[in-house]
Amino acid sequence: MTDAPAKLIDRAAKTLGPRAVITDPSEIEPWVSDWRGRVHGSSPAMLAPASTEEVVEIVRLAAEYRVPLVPQGGNTGMAAGATPPADGSAILLSMRRMNSIRSISADNRLAVAEAGVVLATLHDAVHEVGMRFPLTLGARGSCTIGGLTSTNAGGTQVLKFGTMRSLVAGVEAVLPDGSVHSGLSGLKKDNRGYSLDQLLIGAEGTLGVITAVALRLVPAIAARAVAWTGVDSPAKALELLRFLEARTQSVEGFELVPQDSLDLVLKHVPGTRAPLSGEHPWHALVEGTTADPAVDIVAELQSLLAAALRQGIIGDAVIAANEAQAEAFWKLRDTISEAERAEGQTLAHDISVSVADMPAFIVDAAAKVEAAFPGVVATGFGHLGDGNIHFHVRAGSHAAPGWYDAEGEKITHMVDDLVTAAGGSISAEHGIGQLKRAEFARLAPPARIHALRAIKHALDPLGIMNPGKLVP
Amino acid sequence: MTDAPAKLIDRAAKTLGPRAVITDPSEIEPWVSDWRGRVHGSSPAMLAPASTEEVVEIVRLAAEYRVPLVPQGGNTGMAAGATPPADGSAILLSMRRMNSIRSISADNRLAVAEAGVVLATLHDAVHEVGMRFPLTLGARGSCTIGGLTSTNAGGTQVLKFGTMRSLVAGVEAVLPDGSVHSGLSGLKKDNRGYSLDQLLIGAEGTLGVITAVALRLVPAIAARAVAWTGVDSPAKALELLRFLEARTQSVEGFELVPQDSLDLVLKHVPGTRAPLSGEHPWHALVEGTTADPAVDIVAELQSLLAAALRQGIIGDAVIAANEAQAEAFWKLRDTISEAERAEGQTLAHDISVSVADMPAFIVDAAAKVEAAFPGVVATGFGHLGDGNIHFHVRAGSHAAPGWYDAEGEKITHMVDDLVTAAGGSISAEHGIGQLKRAEFARLAPPARIHALRAIKHALDPLGIMNPGKLVP
Repeated sequence: MTDAPAKLIDRAAKTLGPRAVITDPSEIEPWVSDWRGRVHGSSPAMLAPASTEEVVEIVRLAAEYRVPLVPQGGNTGMAAGATPPADGSAILLSMRRMNSIRSISADNRLAVAEAGVVLATLHDAVHEVGMRFPLTLGARGSCTIGGLTSTNAGGTQVLKFGTMRSLVAGVEAVLPDGSVHSGLSGLKKDNRGYSLDQLLIGAEGTLGVITAVALRLVPAIAARAVAWTGVDSPAKALELLRFLEARTQSVEGFELVPQDSLDLVLKHVPGTRAPLSGEHPWHALVEGTTADPAVDIVAELQSLLAAALRQGIIGDAVIAANEAQAEAFWKLRDTISEAERAEGQTLAHDISVSVADMPAFIVDAAAKVEAAFPGVVATGFGHLGDGNIHFHVRAGSHAAPGWYDAEGEKITHMVDDLVTAAGGSISAEHGIGQLKRAEFARLAPPARIHALRAIKHALDPLGIMNPGKLVP
Repeated sequence: MTDAPAKLIDRAAKTLGPRAVITDPSEIEPWVSDWRGRVHGSSPAMLAPASTEEVVEIVRLAAEYRVPLVPQGGNTGMAAGATPPADGSAILLSMRRMNSIRSISADNRLAVAEAGVVLATLHDAVHEVGMRFPLTLGARGSCTIGGLTSTNAGGTQVLKFGTMRSLVAGVEAVLPDGSVHSGLSGLKKDNRGYSLDQLLIGAEGTLGVITAVALRLVPAIAARAVAWTGVDSPAKALELLRFLEARTQSVEGFELVPQDSLDLVLKHVPGTRAPLSGEHPWHALVEGTTADPAVDIVAELQSLLAAALRQGIIGDAVIAANEAQAEAFWKLRDTISEAERAEGQTLAHDISVSVADMPAFIVDAAAKVEAAFPGVVATGFGHLGDGNIHFHVRAGSHAAPGWYDAEGEKITHMVDDLVTAAGGSISAEHGIGQLKRAEFARLAPPARIHALRAIKHALDPLGIMNPGKLVP
């Protein structure tokens, strides 16, 4: 360990002032572990710039002293991509003070938000001018625009609006050489060479520090309809989605929930109740929205679900009678992970295969894992229409004690091997970070890893941008 | 000049056979100039691989002999990005023999087409299974999927469906080291590191050779309605678009046409007639479509345009009574460039600014250019809803002879300076190629050029992939 970090901190304090340089360990401590508590890091300081110019200054110091930076937003990532190494060799770069919304234009359907703006804050601000930023996810109250962009976040409305990659119109970032890439003009069409914006999206802070993002807006929702349906299988759930999509453009949420997951939620989460009276092996939560106040979205969804029922696609369905019930349906979906944790240890896999292949994959992979590791319970829930399922494996009642440590890695290898054999992705929306780096290295084609390393080295030859993340 | 190209050609002929190595100058000649005849190149051979494996073989030979390759599809590009240098130092790589559609899945809404598949061929093939690939443009009968992807092509339906960047689900490409990047699984969500797909889209063949592309499909159109409207100004045209967008999701084409351009078309293109009886300073062509046979799209557009007329947004409107008339309306838009050429020399600028700024930009920039260069006629037409206008300047009746050579560069500099000052792009959809490279170098921030060069050098250290294009 050199004294370079100390020198950098000293210089930063002189240049940027004390507000931007936090060295009190008690203030740093909440931010050096990932929020799920699996990876514990350390940092001698937390730098908190308030402007792009201050980020430039910090990146220049990092280059001068060869001290790596670990950019961080709300610290809600799932792959420990914003957690510094444990040896204190890197410095945490908190983007949370860069939290102004620079502009909102309903005319251009664009907002420009700084990296530290919290997603829910943006939602509220654009709603005030009759617009909507359509990406949302469970951590909306603390995750930031910079983090969402750097991880190419997904969430529950990807079906209609895509991931951040589709919703980002441009990025402002400080590159590792201290230059500023300014991509905020929000042009809908721009063919001036390689897209640095697209390269920075999902780069997990390894190619530069995103300081602000131009985001595409859509008209605000006038009304929504949320339905809970019971189906026989994931294949029937996908059939329902295709049935709806052929008849309306209003479906924007479609989440698959197995009975097993619903049971856990009903058991562990207070105030929940089953939407349907009978049991169904699988369920699909359907959300339709409209921006047009003249459209009766509830009636539309009701009539479509009635037709799907008559055609035998679904076994039963109920539409939320009011907003409180709609929220209650979504709660059943959003608290699955929480319920699983209350039940015991769970191995989570955020995977994707092609949409058409996913129904069979869920069933087959669950059977294979349960056969190979007797006693465990394997199941998949989530974004069926995106081909993205959270494939979770939990100990179950018959598993041996200590199974997580004993079998966890083996189970994950098996799941990742099945996904890879199916042409899928071992990280659909959570990224690689630290936690999936070994599996990525094990399973990615060598040519891909070679290309990623070449790009990383080309833009960050000193290795100061979030080393040890994403690139194997 | 070395004898390396001759050695490569010799080796290629032995390895790949005579069909893949064309050396007859008369067969090569049609392909070594850009289709608009502005740039004339030369190549000692045209290599025409029939498979990805053959492309790998060719790229390996190019690396071994340090001979650059110039990938080419239908040779319909607007920036001479597929035209080899005049000194014969590079070899043309025709992708047109790789022309099979590997798969079409209505279920996954995906088609996988090889690089040499002609756009119109793909349109027809997916239509047979009730689907549609929604990107289209004038050159659809000869442009190829590989070229469209490599140039991030746009066209007339970008408003609703985006450019190729939005429509490509994945790319297969041979990288400069001879490795194959396989991104064809068509996953909707995949966060395994930097997106090589997005890096290759719009890279104009400078980072690798695209061999096949997975393309997103949408349901086939059941019906369309095409209207011609007269408006007072570009601002009114944009107001009309926003009025329609607030009330329907069916608008997918919206093209601005000035009276001046319409006059030229009526004068030079046989069989054309004005859709409206009176004159209007500006016109907007509106296309609405529906995939639902139950929707009466003509009635919907008619009622919306009647409301826009009552509110004074438009001055007049007519809806095509049948498909022949719809085609006739589109012909008025699609033959503007042809009519301009018949009238005399024209300087074309494919530019974009933010959508909200475009109406004022067209009017202001035209006035400034006409004031600075007396006698010329400046006007803009095209994709107003994308903020992308083809800003054309023609000699006009009063301009001095030889104005193109005398003033062309000065006018282009002025237009590009105005665009840059407005935060816009000097290449909205046509790319940089050879023709815009000097202007790109003049106007791009040095940090951007530095980053592009670093990426180029990282992935193509030997400089064998289409040198002299895109990267200044």
